[in-house]
Amino acid sequence: MSRLTGKALVGQSGGPTAVINQSLVGVIETALGAPEITQILGAENGIQGILDGRLVDLGREDRAELERVARTPAAALGSVRKKPTSEECARIVEALVRHDIRYVFYIGGNDSAETAHLLNNAAQARGFDVRLFHVPKTIDNDLAAQDHTPGYGSAARFVAQAMLGVDADNKSLGGVKVDVIMGRHAGWLTAASRLARLQPGDGPHLIYVPEVAFDIDKFLRAVGACLADHNRCVIAVSEGIHLANGTLVAEVGASGQSEVDSHGNVQLSGSGALGDKLAAWIKEGVTGAKRVRADTYGYLQRSYFGVVSEQDALEAREVGRVAVRVATSGERPHGSVSIQRDRVHGVYRPRYEVLQLADVAQKTRVMPAEYLLGDSDVSPTFLDYALPLVGELPQPGRLARHRFQG
Amino acid sequence: MSRLTGKALVGQSGGPTAVINQSLVGVIETALGAPEITQILGAENGIQGILDGRLVDLGREDRAELERVARTPAAALGSVRKKPTSEECARIVEALVRHDIRYVFYIGGNDSAETAHLLNNAAQARGFDVRLFHVPKTIDNDLAAQDHTPGYGSAARFVAQAMLGVDADNKSLGGVKVDVIMGRHAGWLTAASRLARLQPGDGPHLIYVPEVAFDIDKFLRAVGACLADHNRCVIAVSEGIHLANGTLVAEVGASGQSEVDSHGNVQLSGSGALGDKLAAWIKEGVTGAKRVRADTYGYLQRSYFGVVSEQDALEAREVGRVAVRVATSGERPHGSVSIQRDRVHGVYRPRYEVLQLADVAQKTRVMPAEYLLGDSDVSPTFLDYALPLVGELPQPGRLARHRFQG
Repeated sequence: MSRLTGKALVGQSGGPTAVINQSLVGVIETALGAPEITQILGAENGIQGILDGRLVDLGREDRAELERVARTPAAALGSVRKKPTSEECARIVEALVRHDIRYVFYIGGNDSAETAHLLNNAAQARGFDVRLFHVPKTIDNDLAAQDHTPGYGSAARFVAQAMLGVDADNKSLGGVKVDVIMGRHAGWLTAASRLARLQPGDGPHLIYVPEVAFDIDKFLRAVGACLADHNRCVIAVSEGIHLANGTLVAEVGASGQSEVDSHGNVQLSGSGALGDKLAAWIKEGVTGAKRVRADTYGYLQRSYFGVVSEQDALEAREVGRVAVRVATSGERPHGSVSIQRDRVHGVYRPRYEVLQLADVAQKTRVMPAEYLLGDSDVSPTFLDYALPLVGELPQPGRLARHRFQG
Repeated sequence: MSRLTGKALVGQSGGPTAVINQSLVGVIETALGAPEITQILGAENGIQGILDGRLVDLGREDRAELERVARTPAAALGSVRKKPTSEECARIVEALVRHDIRYVFYIGGNDSAETAHLLNNAAQARGFDVRLFHVPKTIDNDLAAQDHTPGYGSAARFVAQAMLGVDADNKSLGGVKVDVIMGRHAGWLTAASRLARLQPGDGPHLIYVPEVAFDIDKFLRAVGACLADHNRCVIAVSEGIHLANGTLVAEVGASGQSEVDSHGNVQLSGSGALGDKLAAWIKEGVTGAKRVRADTYGYLQRSYFGVVSEQDALEAREVGRVAVRVATSGERPHGSVSIQRDRVHGVYRPRYEVLQLADVAQKTRVMPAEYLLGDSDVSPTFLDYALPLVGELPQPGRLARHRFQG
């Protein structure tokens, strides 16, 4: 395949992560060093910025500031949740033609991979030769055909450190604690709470993920049994848990219209309703349940400034670099960068592999059965999976509490 | 005043903080070095453990583990929310007499200072000579007659880092964001969100604290004006905001009984209801408000493992040490340790001063008018106050976004 010379364009899309700007800076720095790329442009708010003509010249950014941007959470170029219509795809391709943009890098989740796929089809239909790459990110860790996604390690670290503290807090005052964690279809992030259970008796005692149908009565019995065993109970719950019939627990008994985005996703985050509902059910339905509290980690788990997995930051940088290298090498005309896992002498090592856009677009990768344990727990195998991505966690101290016999 | 020899007892009470165990270890290590103290005991769950005879011998704890305990959030001895009856006070004093406990250190907030005060009165009535000291802690920063409290700096740091990320996240996708922060009577912690506003246009754009009566219509107009100005709006709200007639906003339109502890405090934390209510009002009452989201920082802000102000950790350790030093010196028979502020060549320096128990018990210190700005903001003066307590924050990078004219 021939090499192609022209401008490059990068955009960010979907819910941001703590390291999505690492990927952005990885794209920028590699593009600046690539002879095939004449100028590196950024689209504000993803494809919306291409449609509106809001493009910026990223080659003029200060390099030291770019390093600070890389360490700053959320999308520095602005993001968007938008599925382009075919008319919009055509308009976007015309903009690429007009500006001689020959490389497009779109950083986002599976909806963004779909957008890249649609744009690629539109460019081919138009007969315009452009290299179109999807650069992965999502705290949900649910992209198909890969080991994990950039953004997951840092969000999982945030969740694990939160749960370490929440469990210590619950030990101090007792009672039942419900913690609601992001994850619409997959329980990867909620499962990371399991990293906080270091000794028998530590929370989270119960973990509910969308991969397993949620049964309200069974849940209440499990909470009661947990209270009987530990005299306290810490519960981690994915926002996306649903009943066997598919109804989201967040929507059980809800009235009115739910908010839906243009990809068809119902709004789950940005509300404490699910946690409050579960807490109310426990107060009502579990004998002896006192001091029932709920926290919803909300946007903090994807945007918190200062809690990052170093491995995740490094890999997020690298997927951006790899996208530009593969695109300019002419190896492939389009694709989606992915992280696969190698073990070298038993030690975790990431490997970067380019997938077909269609293999990632719109697909969701849920947790495999081997990572689940019964209907309310996560297996030790999952810890082996997650630990290299999250990095070493702070270790809580514990008093031995030698009894004083007066 | 004569020196007194006997055992010492330490307990933790009220809502934990990220550094309350620093104070515990400060008490233990100083007690272990004090010739007046024959043994250092711990009460599990504060006064409840004294009543139940659940005492532990802290002198037998491993010293390296104690250092890990000091860096672990939440109360390592367990905590309690309990106001002792006069009968319970008498029983507690009998336990002190029985075990020859001559020093009591009670770590907690203003309710715990009240408990210490009641115990002191009961001991005096019984004619038992015991040195009774309150060691301060509270993320609410609302103890009377002091500059600030241990626990505040770390919680404020958690809030500031959360808001830095939340504001970046909101910049990425736009919309209205309501963040609910702890603070029943005082806005100190909510005000700390202001540390995230580094440049004009940064959030939080509106800050609501309990010191100022909340007006629903005015609030909705302010959100509308903010959207008109910035095309987005980030709002920080104390859980304890109330209407001019004193009704908590959290209870407006609420049905059923609120949960009240034995000190008479209504449950505000551990629920996302206030944030969801404000979000619903905005969706209904502000024209053009789209993508309205709410987060409630909840227990994470007092218990998160891994985000600590080093200055706060150091001061929390020191108040425990000072309590033991003052108690054993015989300077004063009882009191409450406080942190005052000195400026040495313009640089912040803490000074430790012992107050009367009655001057701290049950009193609440709200934010002075000089720290407030209008009815929905915090003054720059507050930043000078808070910064030394919180420490240097991570600095976000920003793209210059040079326009590309194609």
